[in-house]
Amino acid sequence: MTYCVGLKLDRGLVFMSDTRTNAGVDNISVFRKMFIWDRPGERSVTLMTAGNLATTQAVVSLLNERAKPAEERGAPSILEAASMFQVAKLVGETLREVIVEQSGRMGMQADSPFSATLILGGQVHGGEPRLFMIYPEGNFVEASADTPFFQIGETKYGKPILVRAYDPGMSFEDAVKLLMLSFDSTIKANLSVSLPLDLHLYEADSLKTGRVHRIERDDPFYEMISSGWGEALRAAFDRLPAYRLE
Amino acid sequence: MTYCVGLKLDRGLVFMSDTRTNAGVDNISVFRKMFIWDRPGERSVTLMTAGNLATTQAVVSLLNERAKPAEERGAPSILEAASMFQVAKLVGETLREVIVEQSGRMGMQADSPFSATLILGGQVHGGEPRLFMIYPEGNFVEASADTPFFQIGETKYGKPILVRAYDPGMSFEDAVKLLMLSFDSTIKANLSVSLPLDLHLYEADSLKTGRVHRIERDDPFYEMISSGWGEALRAAFDRLPAYRLE
Repeated sequence: MTYCVGLKLDRGLVFMSDTRTNAGVDNISVFRKMFIWDRPGERSVTLMTAGNLATTQAVVSLLNERAKPAEERGAPSILEAASMFQVAKLVGETLREVIVEQSGRMGMQADSPFSATLILGGQVHGGEPRLFMIYPEGNFVEASADTPFFQIGETKYGKPILVRAYDPGMSFEDAVKLLMLSFDSTIKANLSVSLPLDLHLYEADSLKTGRVHRIERDDPFYEMISSGWGEALRAAFDRLPAYRLE
Repeated sequence: MTYCVGLKLDRGLVFMSDTRTNAGVDNISVFRKMFIWDRPGERSVTLMTAGNLATTQAVVSLLNERAKPAEERGAPSILEAASMFQVAKLVGETLREVIVEQSGRMGMQADSPFSATLILGGQVHGGEPRLFMIYPEGNFVEASADTPFFQIGETKYGKPILVRAYDPGMSFEDAVKLLMLSFDSTIKANLSVSLPLDLHLYEADSLKTGRVHRIERDDPFYEMISSGWGEALRAAFDRLPAYRLE
């Protein structure tokens, strides 16, 4: 399993992904699930992946090949598409193509074992920062004021805190804290999601890769948030009035 | 979908269940999912159900028929089994029987559309209060100090708060508050779980039905907890130190 979240804030886009992949509980590895392309001053594009690792690696490899200068090949490039919408279309088509190919004669199915789901976000010069969720069929939806974040993978445990504490005007510092809490709730409940976590903070209109950080297993801030939250929750719980039995 | 939780406390057992059933989002009804049998001074047994409604209603009907005085039929009775373990065995066998019958020639399968999962708890004179989770195959596991609660149905959204705030020594009042928060997180995230909620507080060694209450849609305490928790979470969130960007 996997857990990735993309948040759309007034200040920009925040991406966080875990790194655990597993084929059964006895075959666990660390793989990067966050990939960033940029052409400083012109665009920055971030992709996060959940699903079959062979599929997502093939998608990223194909996108990388296609990110080479246009004269070297002929395909459209993630670094040249004219808008984030065009980038999303390109990534969606690549994803569908890989799933169809890997599924072979079985035909393409969203519930195929080769399936995957992606979060894509970024900004191209001349446009706003945009955030998309891309489905195995290659189509996609965009984040809006009503649905300002996307989750993929093991999404349920970490959703309640996102719903309660997200605020489009929040600072990057608070957004990282919020995402750490959401990841901590998930990691505490599901063995198949785990540290280290990858983080990318894309600042609106910067048009280049922002702060990128890997949060390691012994990260002191993560540990403090994780243990501090237990106490903070209990304190909040205690402050609520008790139910009165009739 | 459904959400039910059974908690084992030092003071007794706490049961809470929602009442929404749905066949598609355009066919929603209210059905009771909590059933209580008792023989005051001798035993109290509570059952909560998740899964196919035809299956769970058939199970409860069969258990009711079998709860009639032994001379009227011949089957073992939920009110006569010698221990909670025997009650759990009886309920598990009834569940498996109904699933096998309804699945017909398809054979019994845990993932059959006729499947169901149950939480059973109570106390029989001479024994301790006990809490079980019963699977579609008819087998069951018992709650222990390490796993002091069971959830069935849509379990993920409401689990983090249970894990963080449960304490075996907590009062019934606090347990109701905790369960309301767990249900509120679930109801906010999943349309197929909804008020009214049924509540049963079984007091250890009372050997009779305890306080039973239906929490209606406009319950003032529930509303206060639900809105108060949003503020309490935000306050707790704000009190945690902010992430420091390098």
